[in-house]
Amino acid sequence: MKNIIKPVKGTRDFYPEQMAVRTWLYGVCRRVSESFGYQEYDAPFLETLELYAAKSGEELVKEQSYVFQDRGGEMLTLRPELTPSLARMVAQRQRQLTFPIRWWSFGPFWRYERPQKGRSREFFQWNVDMLGVDSPEADAEMVAVLATFFREVGLTPEQVLILVNNRRLMDAQFEAFGIPEKGRPVVSTWIDRREKMSPEAWEAYGREIGLSEKQLQNLKAMLDDKELWKQSEELRRFLAAVEALGVDEYVRYDASIVRGLLYYTGTVIEAWEVGGEIRRSILGGGRYDNLLADVGGDPLPGVGFAMGDVVITLVLEKYGLLPTDLTIYPAPVLVTVFDQERLLESFRLASELRRAGLNVVVYPEPKRLPKQFRYADRIGARVALVLGPDELSTGQVAVKDLNSGEQHLVSRGEATVREVQRILAGANS
Amino acid sequence: MKNIIKPVKGTRDFYPEQMAVRTWLYGVCRRVSESFGYQEYDAPFLETLELYAAKSGEELVKEQSYVFQDRGGEMLTLRPELTPSLARMVAQRQRQLTFPIRWWSFGPFWRYERPQKGRSREFFQWNVDMLGVDSPEADAEMVAVLATFFREVGLTPEQVLILVNNRRLMDAQFEAFGIPEKGRPVVSTWIDRREKMSPEAWEAYGREIGLSEKQLQNLKAMLDDKELWKQSEELRRFLAAVEALGVDEYVRYDASIVRGLLYYTGTVIEAWEVGGEIRRSILGGGRYDNLLADVGGDPLPGVGFAMGDVVITLVLEKYGLLPTDLTIYPAPVLVTVFDQERLLESFRLASELRRAGLNVVVYPEPKRLPKQFRYADRIGARVALVLGPDELSTGQVAVKDLNSGEQHLVSRGEATVREVQRILAGANS
Repeated sequence: MKNIIKPVKGTRDFYPEQMAVRTWLYGVCRRVSESFGYQEYDAPFLETLELYAAKSGEELVKEQSYVFQDRGGEMLTLRPELTPSLARMVAQRQRQLTFPIRWWSFGPFWRYERPQKGRSREFFQWNVDMLGVDSPEADAEMVAVLATFFREVGLTPEQVLILVNNRRLMDAQFEAFGIPEKGRPVVSTWIDRREKMSPEAWEAYGREIGLSEKQLQNLKAMLDDKELWKQSEELRRFLAAVEALGVDEYVRYDASIVRGLLYYTGTVIEAWEVGGEIRRSILGGGRYDNLLADVGGDPLPGVGFAMGDVVITLVLEKYGLLPTDLTIYPAPVLVTVFDQERLLESFRLASELRRAGLNVVVYPEPKRLPKQFRYADRIGARVALVLGPDELSTGQVAVKDLNSGEQHLVSRGEATVREVQRILAGANS
Repeated sequence: MKNIIKPVKGTRDFYPEQMAVRTWLYGVCRRVSESFGYQEYDAPFLETLELYAAKSGEELVKEQSYVFQDRGGEMLTLRPELTPSLARMVAQRQRQLTFPIRWWSFGPFWRYERPQKGRSREFFQWNVDMLGVDSPEADAEMVAVLATFFREVGLTPEQVLILVNNRRLMDAQFEAFGIPEKGRPVVSTWIDRREKMSPEAWEAYGREIGLSEKQLQNLKAMLDDKELWKQSEELRRFLAAVEALGVDEYVRYDASIVRGLLYYTGTVIEAWEVGGEIRRSILGGGRYDNLLADVGGDPLPGVGFAMGDVVITLVLEKYGLLPTDLTIYPAPVLVTVFDQERLLESFRLASELRRAGLNVVVYPEPKRLPKQFRYADRIGARVALVLGPDELSTGQVAVKDLNSGEQHLVSRGEATVREVQRILAGANS
């Protein structure tokens, strides 16, 4: 094996097989987003460090972002998430845009994390956001977009769930337990670790960050209280709207959902695989009512979520839901080349068929016909055409159905197109 | 005006209007590529510096690439072009792939250049390549893909031309003029500058790089010789194949086409706007027979081209060929909200319509109906639905045709779907 230059760790090569999956996923995201009236947009992939300094989590900016100086000395960041760019773009046109805006996007993001199952350093993310409305019903629509995606790809509520909590409800609880505002991020991180530690280690960690026994007991009771949402009018309205949108089977209240990003202010959501074997959330999101002001705009409420392509692909694989019938080779028709002398006639024939709207590969050089037929097989072609001296002398083309092996001589021109179309129609049925 | 955080110079925000154009361009590239049987693929956006060190032009790597150290100390590059990644990917699977391979891609690239008309630091590029065949006919197919793109977007040979030259023909000429191999890159750069300088300055520059008077005269005669291609069997076969593919009207031989990238070995191509007002080439490409070996693979011939999105967009704008009827708002149906009490009924109705396959926006909060109708206008909706107390008590929906202003009461359920579809069918015709 030669020493081939390596790709960068945590990046992925998209050969046509992998690319077809990415394109399929992008297409589902498009279909679902558009069915709710969301418009596609995109932000630059390079942004200033300043943009993230305001509100993205500390860990995200200081430890996980690719930050570097350009040749002009400016500090740039490969975007680790989209919401700050969205806020910047909306703030720039806040006077011109028609609110509410509903926008979606699908594109690349970068985080310097240890590459492992379900994680890569360069990944794709579906982002969906609504700006200009502050209501639990808007939050419910966001969850309906998500649940519709799950339905569309065939994931059931027995396989994936959308877990919901509310920052304001949590804050009221923290307040009641005597946990001051500046201590809450640490407590949130502690809550987030519960599932990843033994109960003893987790409680010890709670004492370490300064929680009293009373606070510990209160917090544990809060986390286990499945009915706590009833104390929040916001959550009650949210769940009623989720029901009206017909997606309640996918949604559960869960007090342990605390999102790390500092900008969330109300509803927060995460989706998880139910079996629990895939130990990373499928996506996260929530309501962020201050973000525009943080980048220099006027205050504007918003809600959104982001789903990376890596974990959802693992989940789909696990349940056998990745499509197996994707078109990897786009051309079902191969024009063979009889010999060097007749090569250009094959080129002409291929052009004629393309002008009739067919996707056509022409074998690019004279090789033995059996080799060309084998190639046709490998690229999944359904029809092969032969144009030898006999066919050329009579103005005909030999059209071979590669499934049945049958071959017919037809006149060149419209008759050829019709015969090819006839075989393709049969092959698809 | 508040001080909103700025985007990075040379990057672009894609609001839905601009995104629709990018998506349209991507779609045309897909259609054309697939009509010739090319498969979509993609490489990582981050690659090692090493990958480009081998063969990309000096200027590209040393002056124009974004190069930086990651948190682990590795030297990374934001890809400035795709061909080296393609070579790496093919080399990795050289034993498994079925040749010839025909691959295309559409994605982001970065070059640190002075931003100006026709140039941005972050741009998108269409790449098309065929590997595994070494023939002038394969080169001609590449040009046919390109010409088909021009036809598809409506650009005529009076507006754009594909200019062609051949490195081997040039080398034979350089040899005959006594220009040694290591001096040829400098001479190529000099040839490339001809159009950008006065004849006197250009000749003086030629003497400066060491050309003798005799060499100067020979080179000038060579550049002006429109028939020189006849001396190259490769170019003769290439142009015959271009004719067979029916795209000769777009193709001209031009001895002044020298591509800067070191890896080209045979045919080289550039496309230019004919009027000459847009002073940057639309695209470039050619044959590169050594590139795989350079990244550690076995030698494999290849040919390809790359077209950035910025210059072609300028050309399309100049000729009024950017589509003006792109769908910016994907949902033609708006469900209004009568009041807070009936909000969830509107959500239910929207869900019913979506399940019937319609793209539906629901106004997310109760506002005065005229305001909601104005919103429907602004987002280009064709149909608005009203569900007030009267409609709810009779199990009906008011369906309003926003073009004609006509409004009908229909039963909720299938009748609603049919009425909406009827209006949409009329609106499209």
